[in-house]
Amino acid sequence: MRLKKVRIVGSGLIGTSIGLGLVARNISVEMVDIDPRAQKLAQDLIGAPTPEKADLTILALPSSALSSVLNREYDLNPESKFIDIGSVKTKPVLDVERSQIPTGRFCPTHPMAGREIGGAESARGDLFAGRPWILCVQGVDADVVEAAKELVELLGAKAFEVDVDEHDMAVALISHLPQMVASLLAKQLNAGQSKWLALAGSGLRDTTRIAESDPILWSEIISENREKVLPLLETFAEDLSEVISNLRGSESTKTAIKKLIVDGNLGRSKIPGKHGGVARDYTLLPVVIEDKPGQLGLLFTECDKARVNIEDLAIEHTPGQFTGLITLSLSATDAQTLYEHLLGCGWNVHTPR
Amino acid sequence: MRLKKVRIVGSGLIGTSIGLGLVARNISVEMVDIDPRAQKLAQDLIGAPTPEKADLTILALPSSALSSVLNREYDLNPESKFIDIGSVKTKPVLDVERSQIPTGRFCPTHPMAGREIGGAESARGDLFAGRPWILCVQGVDADVVEAAKELVELLGAKAFEVDVDEHDMAVALISHLPQMVASLLAKQLNAGQSKWLALAGSGLRDTTRIAESDPILWSEIISENREKVLPLLETFAEDLSEVISNLRGSESTKTAIKKLIVDGNLGRSKIPGKHGGVARDYTLLPVVIEDKPGQLGLLFTECDKARVNIEDLAIEHTPGQFTGLITLSLSATDAQTLYEHLLGCGWNVHTPR
Repeated sequence: MRLKKVRIVGSGLIGTSIGLGLVARNISVEMVDIDPRAQKLAQDLIGAPTPEKADLTILALPSSALSSVLNREYDLNPESKFIDIGSVKTKPVLDVERSQIPTGRFCPTHPMAGREIGGAESARGDLFAGRPWILCVQGVDADVVEAAKELVELLGAKAFEVDVDEHDMAVALISHLPQMVASLLAKQLNAGQSKWLALAGSGLRDTTRIAESDPILWSEIISENREKVLPLLETFAEDLSEVISNLRGSESTKTAIKKLIVDGNLGRSKIPGKHGGVARDYTLLPVVIEDKPGQLGLLFTECDKARVNIEDLAIEHTPGQFTGLITLSLSATDAQTLYEHLLGCGWNVHTPR
Repeated sequence: MRLKKVRIVGSGLIGTSIGLGLVARNISVEMVDIDPRAQKLAQDLIGAPTPEKADLTILALPSSALSSVLNREYDLNPESKFIDIGSVKTKPVLDVERSQIPTGRFCPTHPMAGREIGGAESARGDLFAGRPWILCVQGVDADVVEAAKELVELLGAKAFEVDVDEHDMAVALISHLPQMVASLLAKQLNAGQSKWLALAGSGLRDTTRIAESDPILWSEIISENREKVLPLLETFAEDLSEVISNLRGSESTKTAIKKLIVDGNLGRSKIPGKHGGVARDYTLLPVVIEDKPGQLGLLFTECDKARVNIEDLAIEHTPGQFTGLITLSLSATDAQTLYEHLLGCGWNVHTPR
């Protein structure tokens, strides 16, 4: 099949972004929202839909509101296929089981494109471009799975198939636990003096960045996935408690802390890099630049001339000063090539490592 | 006074970097190390010193080795001023009190320029450029403080005066606690499946980056500052325990989690940005680029043309795909200027936010 018309229930960031992406691919999109103003804004952004019934209904509303619309949507269009887009997958499945929608007609999905901006006005049609989009296809009718996959493809995302239970375990580990830990860490800063925080380096900044997340969205996600998040928090708490009792003792403190850091090194090394490689496979190339307009542009122009591919980049902040440290991540070969190239044209570049 | 000759005891990354920075300013530098190979490498890098006695001795060796050299260094050169460079300041002060060095002749200092690369071969003369350098001047003779400040200035760093006790409390909060938390978090990833980690976004990457730190260096730092780190870990553990018991309950879970995220928002907002402003003062400008060589160079060339200053930049990783999301941080005015400029030349740029 090819999708002709899609009905999107929920005109927030995700729903409207899906709508924008689909109309760009010539699919008719009908936007719905409990808030008439949001619905109108979204539909205005997207353009008027064709009059026929939708062949796919996307439930893009907060998880807590899902159960209230299922029967109505089914009554309106019993021939439609249904998917949701929530961050936790166990509860939507239960909600659908308790509704009139036959379970085979509903595919739980999760586009992994979260940002802390809300509303139709923040929507963009390419929000999902290149992002993973999880599909929980077990027990779902083949034509519904096909429609969900077509949607993912149309939006330029990449489909990953995972079971409902495994999905919720995975996101608990890679997303919900880090969120809780970052918020707990950032909370501790409230007890510190401002002048101490002025000394903070990129380590503190990085570890607390996601502590900027939206409280309403995240309190819903965490409480909904509490069954999977709890054991992870408990294990974390046990490990922390062991660290504390080792620090209270005096004998084996150093050995215990060293083991913790080694365990952390190992866990960190398991996060894959950009194209499926392991993060630590990259070689780091430090370049000291003057902190003024144009320097980064010149640097990347040289990268282009050297025909190397920059995998990632970090800028070291320098309070009150006008030099900056750029650390480029490249393949070992590209790092050596770029090092020699930059040295040759007088850049303040340091040995790759 | 102006420094003429400096003796640096310890030819690792910090000691050798100080040496390189000083010879570049025409100061004679004598490198010392317990390892003759390291000493020779460092001295070769820096060049032969003049024969006179040093007016400043910098103790740039691991904190655990400090006490073993104090009396020898004092006997060799009782007229010298002394400073150290350790990450924790209480213990060096105690070590000096137990040595022949008069306490007023020793200034505890801490250059905040840590990286996880070791050895003289990684040294660079500009390691401290623009970085904070903490001086604990209480009870230190004026001429010793003056020499320490001159050193900081010569190396392009920025002096901050903090008491010994306050220093150790501050670094416990802004550096040692985040290190422990990041290592504990990264450790949890060892229990996850590899395919789950392939779905990880920048949140997990950022929160665990410093979990790559060196185990030997950090086990020494943490155990030495245990008195200041312990209460912070204990408060963190209490907060975590409260979160866990809220998640185990069913009544007030959402409210409690929401409060935690709000507290985290607040703590995070206290970290100042690059030039003393608050981190959230920057406006974010998302640009979608094709993930191929040259794109970043072209983008920054346009930034240059638009005469805007990029304060920071993030690259969104996209497993197995060839589009990338670049998020630029700029002032609100620069963001609007660049937005219009990039739109005008056909870039896939999104509304500043």
